[in-house]
Amino acid sequence: MSEAVRPIDWVSDDGTAPRRAADDIDRPGRIRLLDQTLLPEREHYLLIEAVDELVEAIQRLAVRGAPALGVAGAMGVALLAQQMPPEHVPSAAAVLRAARPTAVNLARGVDRALAVLPGGPDAVLRAALALRDEEIAASQQMACRGADLLRTLCPDSGPAGLRLMTICNTGSLAAVERGTALAVIEEVWREGRLARAIACETRPLLQGARLTTWELQRLGVPFALVVDGAAASVVHRGLVDAILVGADRIAANGDTANKVGTFGLALAASYAGIPFLIVAPESTVDPGTPTGEDIEIEDRGAEEVVRVRGIPITPEGVSALNPAFDVTPAALITAIVTDRRVVRSGAGERPDA
Amino acid sequence: MSEAVRPIDWVSDDGTAPRRAADDIDRPGRIRLLDQTLLPEREHYLLIEAVDELVEAIQRLAVRGAPALGVAGAMGVALLAQQMPPEHVPSAAAVLRAARPTAVNLARGVDRALAVLPGGPDAVLRAALALRDEEIAASQQMACRGADLLRTLCPDSGPAGLRLMTICNTGSLAAVERGTALAVIEEVWREGRLARAIACETRPLLQGARLTTWELQRLGVPFALVVDGAAASVVHRGLVDAILVGADRIAANGDTANKVGTFGLALAASYAGIPFLIVAPESTVDPGTPTGEDIEIEDRGAEEVVRVRGIPITPEGVSALNPAFDVTPAALITAIVTDRRVVRSGAGERPDA
Repeated sequence: MSEAVRPIDWVSDDGTAPRRAADDIDRPGRIRLLDQTLLPEREHYLLIEAVDELVEAIQRLAVRGAPALGVAGAMGVALLAQQMPPEHVPSAAAVLRAARPTAVNLARGVDRALAVLPGGPDAVLRAALALRDEEIAASQQMACRGADLLRTLCPDSGPAGLRLMTICNTGSLAAVERGTALAVIEEVWREGRLARAIACETRPLLQGARLTTWELQRLGVPFALVVDGAAASVVHRGLVDAILVGADRIAANGDTANKVGTFGLALAASYAGIPFLIVAPESTVDPGTPTGEDIEIEDRGAEEVVRVRGIPITPEGVSALNPAFDVTPAALITAIVTDRRVVRSGAGERPDA
Repeated sequence: MSEAVRPIDWVSDDGTAPRRAADDIDRPGRIRLLDQTLLPEREHYLLIEAVDELVEAIQRLAVRGAPALGVAGAMGVALLAQQMPPEHVPSAAAVLRAARPTAVNLARGVDRALAVLPGGPDAVLRAALALRDEEIAASQQMACRGADLLRTLCPDSGPAGLRLMTICNTGSLAAVERGTALAVIEEVWREGRLARAIACETRPLLQGARLTTWELQRLGVPFALVVDGAAASVVHRGLVDAILVGADRIAANGDTANKVGTFGLALAASYAGIPFLIVAPESTVDPGTPTGEDIEIEDRGAEEVVRVRGIPITPEGVSALNPAFDVTPAALITAIVTDRRVVRSGAGERPDA
C-alpha cells in the first residue's frame, strides 16, 4: 500500500515535507500542486512561487475539487503576504479569487486568509494551514460517518463485503487528503468490509477512469471500472450494494447538483432499492438556493464531447449538449452525509431544517 | 441531402449499381461492404470476392447489425454457389454461419440461401437479393408504423416538432437501408415533424458518436450528441419527447436485450413520463426465451473500456466490467414496434400472445 497523495500543500524552502501542525510556520515557502491534467500518465508536481502561476493552474484544472480549491485560495494569499507589503495584497488576491467564478470555496479560502492579513505573513500562512487541516479533518469525519451509516443501511452484506459504486473523482485529488464519497469507500475498505469499488468512467472528462482508478490503484483498493452507460444495468443486476457520490451544490431542500451522470445513478438505485448517498462537506449546503430548479446547469460546449483525450470520435462539425452537472431530486437521495451530520433526504428531512 | 448508404449489397462484374429487383440476376458478381470500422474518418468500400474475406469482415465488425448480417450470410452463400460445385457449398457455408455465433440472423441468412441450392446459383442469388429486399421493406414498415405511433403518443409536440433520443446505431448501417429506431426518427424528419434527434455516444465502442452522427449528418437531419451519462438528466429536464432504441433480442414476455445503456434510458423515460419505444424486426422476437432473466449478458472484457479508439484512458492494469448488452423490463417499455405490429408492453401486452 503506498502513501496518501496530497494534490495541494505548502512546502518550505528547505525542501522538507509539508508540516501537519498549523503552529509550525515554514516560511518562506511555496505551494506544491499535483498537476491533475497529466494523470494518469504522469505524476508531476508543480512548485508554485507566484500567484499568476496559481491562477493559471486553477483555470486549466491542474488543481480541482471544492476543498482543494479553498486551500489553494488561502495558500495563494499566503504567497502574496510573504512577497509584498500588506497594502498590495488585497488587489493581487482579487485576481486569484476570480480564477474560477463558480467555485465558492476558492473565494471563501481567499477571504479567510485576507481577514488575518493585519497579523502579518505568519498569521496568513497559519490561516491557510489551518484551513488545510480542517479540510483533512472534515474528510475524516465524512469517511467515518459514511462508513457507520453504511453499516446500518447495508447490514446484510455478508462476509465478502460491500460493493460500492461511485462516479467522478471524490478522493484525495479533489480534497487535501482522503476526500468525500471516495473517502467513505476507502474507510469501508480499511475496516475490511469492502468487496470492491465500482467506478464510473465519467465522460466527458473521464475523471473516474483517469483519477479515481489512479487513487484506488495506489491505495490497493479492489475495484472495477465501468462505462457510464453500463452503471444502471450493473445496479439492476444486483452487483452493487450502495452508490456514493459527491456534490457541487446542495439546495436548501436537499436537491443536489453533482457531476453529470449522478441523476441516472440515483434512478438506478431507486429502482433497485439500494441506498444512494451524497457525501459532501457542510460548506456545500447552500441555504440560499431553495431547490434544484434554482441551480443553473452550465453547458461546457461540444469540444469535450466530440473528442476524447484530444482524439476526435465523431465526424467534423457535430454539435453536442454538454451539461457539466445534473440535479438529483432530494426524494431519490437516501441520505446526505456531511462532516457534521446525516440528513435523511429520502425520509423527508431537509438540510436547512 | 445526400444519397442513402447501403452497408452491404451485391455488385455485378460490369460495375453497375446494385439492382433492386430480385428477378434481375447480376452474376457473376461480388459483395460490396462499407467498412464500418473506418467510420467516420474514412468511407471505404470493400469488394468481397471470397467467403473467407467475408468471415474476416464480419468478425472484425466491418459489417454489423442483425439485418445486415442476415443479408451477408445469404450473399456469402451466393458467392460460394457461383464458385464451386453445389456439393461443396454447405461445408464452406458452415464456416460463414459460425462467424459470429450469437448473431442469429447470420445463421438464418445462410440457411435460407442453402435451402434453394438445388435450384442452382441463380436461385441462390435470387434468395439473397429477396432477403435484402425484405429487409428494406421491413425497415420501411417499421419507419412508418413508428412515426404513426409517435403521432398518437406525442400529440402535443407543437410546431417546433419532436425531440427524439436514441442510442447506439440503428440506421442504415445496421440494416440494408433506413434501419430500425433511426429509421423512425428519419421518417418523422421527412414528415417535417422533427425538431432534432439526440444521439447518445454509446461507450465503449461509440457507435452513436461514430456511426449515428455520420448517418444523420449525411441525411441532413438536425441532431445533437450527448455523453451517455448526460442522457437521463437531459430527459429529466424536459428536453426529450420520446426515446427510440433497437433490440438484440426480445423475450416472450417483452423484456428486451439491447446495447448497454438502454436500460438507463428506459428508467429516465419512465421517471419523466415520456414514451420509450423498442423498434426491431419481428425476427428479433424470440419466443424460446421466456423472460429477460434467461438472456445471458456477454462481457466483452476490459480492453474496450480502458481504451478509446486505441488510446489508453486509465492507468495500466485496470480491470473493468464490460457488459455488451442490458435487459430492459417489459414494464418500462411503452411499446415494441416491429415490421408487422405494435405490442403495448407497458400496458401488459406480450409479444408472444
